[in-house]
Amino acid sequence: MAAAIAYAERTAGQTGQSPAVGCVIVKHGKVIGRGHTQPGGRPHAEAAALGMAGEAAAGADIYVTLEPCAHDSERGPACAATVTAARPARVIIACEDPDPRTAGKGIAMLKAAGIEVQCGLMETAARASMAGFFARQTLARPFVTVKLATSLDGRIALPNGESKWITSAAARAHCHLQRARHDMILVGAGTVRADNPALTVRLPGLESRSPARVMLGSGGAPEGWQALASPTDIGELPGNMLFVEGGAETAASFIRADLADRLLLYRAPIILGAGKACLGDIGLHDLMTAHDRWRLVDTRMLAKDRTEIYERAIAPDQ
Amino acid sequence: MAAAIAYAERTAGQTGQSPAVGCVIVKHGKVIGRGHTQPGGRPHAEAAALGMAGEAAAGADIYVTLEPCAHDSERGPACAATVTAARPARVIIACEDPDPRTAGKGIAMLKAAGIEVQCGLMETAARASMAGFFARQTLARPFVTVKLATSLDGRIALPNGESKWITSAAARAHCHLQRARHDMILVGAGTVRADNPALTVRLPGLESRSPARVMLGSGGAPEGWQALASPTDIGELPGNMLFVEGGAETAASFIRADLADRLLLYRAPIILGAGKACLGDIGLHDLMTAHDRWRLVDTRMLAKDRTEIYERAIAPDQ
Ligand SMILES: NC(=O)c1ccc[n+]([C@@H]2O[C@H](COP(=O)([O-])OP(=O)(O)OC[C@H]3O[C@@H](n4cnc5c(N)ncnc54)[C@H](OP(=O)(O)O)[C@@H]3O)[C@@H](O)[C@H]2O)c1
Ligand SMILES: NC(=O)c1ccc[n+]([C@@H]2O[C@H](COP(=O)([O-])OP(=O)(O)OC[C@H]3O[C@@H](n4cnc5c(N)ncnc54)[C@H](OP(=O)(O)O)[C@@H]3O)[C@@H](O)[C@H]2O)c1
Repeated sequence: MAAAIAYAERTAGQTGQSPAVGCVIVKHGKVIGRGHTQPGGRPHAEAAALGMAGEAAAGADIYVTLEPCAHDSERGPACAATVTAARPARVIIACEDPDPRTAGKGIAMLKAAGIEVQCGLMETAARASMAGFFARQTLARPFVTVKLATSLDGRIALPNGESKWITSAAARAHCHLQRARHDMILVGAGTVRADNPALTVRLPGLESRSPARVMLGSGGAPEGWQALASPTDIGELPGNMLFVEGGAETAASFIRADLADRLLLYRAPIILGAGKACLGDIGLHDLMTAHDRWRLVDTRMLAKDRTEIYERAIAPDQ
Repeated sequence: MAAAIAYAERTAGQTGQSPAVGCVIVKHGKVIGRGHTQPGGRPHAEAAALGMAGEAAAGADIYVTLEPCAHDSERGPACAATVTAARPARVIIACEDPDPRTAGKGIAMLKAAGIEVQCGLMETAARASMAGFFARQTLARPFVTVKLATSLDGRIALPNGESKWITSAAARAHCHLQRARHDMILVGAGTVRADNPALTVRLPGLESRSPARVMLGSGGAPEGWQALASPTDIGELPGNMLFVEGGAETAASFIRADLADRLLLYRAPIILGAGKACLGDIGLHDLMTAHDRWRLVDTRMLAKDRTEIYERAIAPDQ
């Protein structure tokens, strides 16, 4: 299952509103097929893996990160039907599909055909790998990562606006990799005015993975960008993974609206003193209520900078 | 030598303007004497260790973190003479004494008496354990640690001034332990007005180790406190280890004056948004000059909070 999750990650940020699923088929201890959702959402992972395994799939174990879908579409038949036709011995599933068109029906179809089904293996890791899809299904909006790159004292620019560069080349490359895993990248109108940023993925081989660009604000967005009037409108955006890259007011407005699911912090070992603070008002009135909202899920050094990833510890209002 | 350094740490922050030295005497692989500088500065570590070893010190190896002093004082004879009289086989010294009254003369006295002398073992660690003494000798001022306890976004209080508590009980206990290792603790007049802080060591068994209190500002200091008009006057303070505990303007004024030798940062996994930033203006005009000034020397988690210790990477102007 770990291999299936890792394989699914290859297509993260490219599957639009579909989940990035991974599938691995094992027979006699050997991998005979593997697949992930293709860019755009089709073919599905199971179809790709079964295509590779061919006849040999009969009697094999199929590991798949999400319950096979139960609904036919004009772009292909239901995966539950395709899997059943391949006559595997067992199907091992990480998470049940929250999509009401499937939601248990895929599993029921497999069981009805006499196939052994296990559900729940590595569910947490698999859900994390499909966080955007789950946010879309359960919250009707994309999964939101808010990125901040600051000095030790929490500044993102000098008083004169200078902000190039606070973090190291290694941290910036890590950030570009995160961009490549998102469908959309959003900055505030203030950042567009101050920096006119390209927001592209500048990593060799991944240039084509630059996400769609969105500007938050009331004015017109630059050519080729989408404009968004309010954070609460993010449900209208096309993809499932939204990367919010600042600035301070924009990041704060997502946190204030309880629309930040993950914080990605880069922190350089420098002191700026006066300058632009990384966050504006989030509407907090009582220090106690600030506690226990964020859980550290990962931290590492990137050259001299520390990166930290926090995720929400309190479920969002639905 | 590591044992001698660790032993010296017991008396850190209590030896006034004298260095906190550690001494261990070893014979046939056994420790036969150990000593550290006593509170107030006397007796010296070597005298204490030799007192414990007695006659057995003849032919032994003496490990000492600082060169034995070469000057008699009304409070006792020169350690170099005391050591010579004990007829050890070898004396192993971590650092030469920068005090001009000794500065190599102690080593010369031992050698002249036919004792084998080695100097430089674990010098860096030993110097760090006597940082206050070295600052006093070479910079004519105490060693300054600036502490900041912040949220993830670098705030130290809400807009309404509320600042209790940002960090966890574990981080606050760690901070109290740091207080116990300092002779003096300083806060700005703004913090005195806002919080009227006790600044005592509230750790069982260490209550008596509370440092002297100093207020930076133009007004009168509270009863029992010393007043300081400017950071550049710290040379007048009695001890060698100064702990600067805020607030934002005070911390910034030490950094701006290049008087911060170490930063002790506590960072809680909370977001405050608007509120009091941890640092005021430090007079920085160019982002490039902010880099490479601070080197991370230690970091760990204290319950949910991360603590980081940075030291200056550029020597101070003398
Ligand atoms: N180090 C970093 O990670 C980083 C990243 C990005 C930016 N920066 C720096 O941050 C600075 C810019 O930050 P900033 O805080 O001034 O500007 P900003 O957040 O980029 O943009 C502020 C604008 O966003 C719009 N906006 C914000 N919240 C909104 C809401 N709730 N609803 C609708 N619109 C909303 C408004 O646009 P309208 O005015 O059009 O209404 C507002 O004026 C620059 O100096 C930039 O270099 C640093
Ligand atoms: N979380 C933490 O670690 C922490 C620690 C301490 C304080 N705090 C919070 O920080 C806030 C207070 O911070 P603050 O920045 O307002 O005040 P502050 O730094 O405590 O005090 C400012 C005052 O210090 C004096 N001062 C500063 N720099 C000076 C200089 N170069 N020369 C001479 N005097 C100087 C001035 O006193 P005069 O006005 O007398 O001239 C100035 O008004 C409070 O809310 C407190 O709760 C938080």
